[in-house]
Amino acid sequence: MPGNSEYQYNQFLPKTPSIGGTTGAGVDHVHCSFGFPNSELFLIKELAEAAKNATLSHGHLALHYPGGPGTWNIRQWIANRGRSRKIKSNPSDILITAGAGQAIDATARVLINPGDEVWVEAPSFFSALRAFEIAGAAVRAFPMDENGLQVDLVQEALEFATFNGGNLPKFIYVMPNFHNPGGVNLSVERRKQLSSLAIKYNFYILEDDAYADIHFNQGVLPAIYSFAPERVIYIGTFSKIIGPGIRLGWTIANSEILQYMRLFLLGSQTNPFMQEIIAGLLENIEFDKYLNDVNQRYVGQLDVMIHELGRYFGDEIKYNKPSGGFFLLVKFKEKVDVSALVALAEKKGVSVVNGKEFYLNGSDVNEIRLCFTYSSENQIRKGIERLAEAYKEMKHATANVEV
Amino acid sequence: MPGNSEYQYNQFLPKTPSIGGTTGAGVDHVHCSFGFPNSELFLIKELAEAAKNATLSHGHLALHYPGGPGTWNIRQWIANRGRSRKIKSNPSDILITAGAGQAIDATARVLINPGDEVWVEAPSFFSALRAFEIAGAAVRAFPMDENGLQVDLVQEALEFATFNGGNLPKFIYVMPNFHNPGGVNLSVERRKQLSSLAIKYNFYILEDDAYADIHFNQGVLPAIYSFAPERVIYIGTFSKIIGPGIRLGWTIANSEILQYMRLFLLGSQTNPFMQEIIAGLLENIEFDKYLNDVNQRYVGQLDVMIHELGRYFGDEIKYNKPSGGFFLLVKFKEKVDVSALVALAEKKGVSVVNGKEFYLNGSDVNEIRLCFTYSSENQIRKGIERLAEAYKEMKHATANVEV
Repeated sequence: MPGNSEYQYNQFLPKTPSIGGTTGAGVDHVHCSFGFPNSELFLIKELAEAAKNATLSHGHLALHYPGGPGTWNIRQWIANRGRSRKIKSNPSDILITAGAGQAIDATARVLINPGDEVWVEAPSFFSALRAFEIAGAAVRAFPMDENGLQVDLVQEALEFATFNGGNLPKFIYVMPNFHNPGGVNLSVERRKQLSSLAIKYNFYILEDDAYADIHFNQGVLPAIYSFAPERVIYIGTFSKIIGPGIRLGWTIANSEILQYMRLFLLGSQTNPFMQEIIAGLLENIEFDKYLNDVNQRYVGQLDVMIHELGRYFGDEIKYNKPSGGFFLLVKFKEKVDVSALVALAEKKGVSVVNGKEFYLNGSDVNEIRLCFTYSSENQIRKGIERLAEAYKEMKHATANVEV
Repeated sequence: MPGNSEYQYNQFLPKTPSIGGTTGAGVDHVHCSFGFPNSELFLIKELAEAAKNATLSHGHLALHYPGGPGTWNIRQWIANRGRSRKIKSNPSDILITAGAGQAIDATARVLINPGDEVWVEAPSFFSALRAFEIAGAAVRAFPMDENGLQVDLVQEALEFATFNGGNLPKFIYVMPNFHNPGGVNLSVERRKQLSSLAIKYNFYILEDDAYADIHFNQGVLPAIYSFAPERVIYIGTFSKIIGPGIRLGWTIANSEILQYMRLFLLGSQTNPFMQEIIAGLLENIEFDKYLNDVNQRYVGQLDVMIHELGRYFGDEIKYNKPSGGFFLLVKFKEKVDVSALVALAEKKGVSVVNGKEFYLNGSDVNEIRLCFTYSSENQIRKGIERLAEAYKEMKHATANVEV
């Protein structure tokens, strides 16, 4: 009977559920896990006014099907903003997406045929790894150091593949600024080198720049896009600066790529109504001042986190202090059962993410990722204390076993 | 040199651009092409208030990542509303999507491996056909009559395939109410028959019910979902009743399907901010009264369109008069070069859609689809007059050639 055979879903469906999103923990719980902004910084009043005004001014048009790459106002703002990273673009080079997530997914769908290679950094953003996997890509990872992706190793691999008839990548996915989870920046020299390789070996660079505006003590380096506009698909988002719930991001790329991406968006093109609201908001606030306030707050929270880590963990951990972004990647010098530590910390009232989520094959890496943006300074103090308690208990238990 | 080889994009990328969206024609132009609601019916004032209030009341939560299947308020409303079509569901059976379009796309991605069969009605919604094609499906079409899909022919094909070792469909895509573009309803008997076949032959039914609330002289028939909840993926949308620009739709299905669909949405999960706005709007309006006003307006516009078609075309056309929905599918009794007619009509100031867009392979079917909802009665009068002028000119030109 055909009715008894097992139903066959898509062969690339992942076996494990996706991680991310809010958790249902109690009020006192400290969230240092996912990349949420601090709710206290949300521009609620300004946004409420913008929402009302945009509906009244643009409603009749914005309530219809968008049918295009996004509203003009918001793409114009993005084009202007890009200049701070040396990106020369016009609104016509920009496609609005539902956050960076949809941009990553659509790019994967446009570029990948099952079996194609995608090269990534190790570690890398878990949702991107998931999107490449779902598209059927063979993903290969390259190590990073304090200056980001080790582009020399990428070059060697490209040369080796060319010489030996191996597979070249369809694209290389990188986060050059305030890397998630690594917290480091790709040096300008390496940006140039990677761009040259993309041109020489005919692959795309998928440049995920979600955290560019969250910087604490410097400007932002020029985007990889600025060195090879034809070979780079640049992704930005309002999630980290206005709020993820509005689900608005953007892609800057050549017209061929944008045209193909739009085919995949079909009916799920991005909400023009929301775009007009945010364009109105951006017009009515002093964006750079607001951003400065946000970054002041975040660097304060980062300093508290680092201070508390020093107090409780001393020399037992190491990390690269980030100069922006949302995350601190902490490595334990001694071997720890990180899965057990994360579970115990959760019980004690603090969430952190197991570092293995950011690597292919999920092998244990003795790391955890801490988000310093969502929780207040006081919550962070509590959170690190709880993490330290969990860590001590585990070490103690292990020591007892060894005796 | 690797740099000189042609770049290989996804093998399933369609060769032709997507149709849909607003056009850039002049003010006097009459749009009878795409499925837009009438802008005059938009609840601008109410929506502006709802947008402001929802931001103030829910902003702190709604600005964060959704991380779930949608906000509770809106899923509760959808669950209640489903009862009018005999759908028994809870909020936990519902996933919010960016319009029906994203639901169709995500379903295709969950169910289809390249080469799998998807069965559809002929004619069918072009964006759905496109989504199945992009997923790599082999699509097969079955004819309709005035009672919708000819389910007997589907049954024969299932029996034939089973007997001869042929391919069964992964799912069958149907629009049971106010079909786009056919305008007809699937009879209750056929709904039951199709449900039984889905259970017996282990396929899903993708039930696209985008137009259910736009009905003129009757209630709505029970959803196919009501006869086989485990085998039906039901899709609804706010696009036709509130406005497409808010990009909110929903899927009601079993938990396995919903869980898989969420994997594909990844970061592009639906805007919780917009959901709270619409939930607030729905709470503050008398929805049934509003819907009644909308439907009164639309049936008036449909009557004008039919009257004008009778006046100009008399016996030269035929159609099934729809009892709801947005569209009238008009067949010319004599062979017409429809592509030329559509182009000439566009020049004269009225847009209509060539019927071939709704069929596989795009072979000529001597049909056009007219949308009667977007344009006012006066615009419709102008539009049909222009269409008739174009038709006459073409017939005249053809007659001259034949002489």
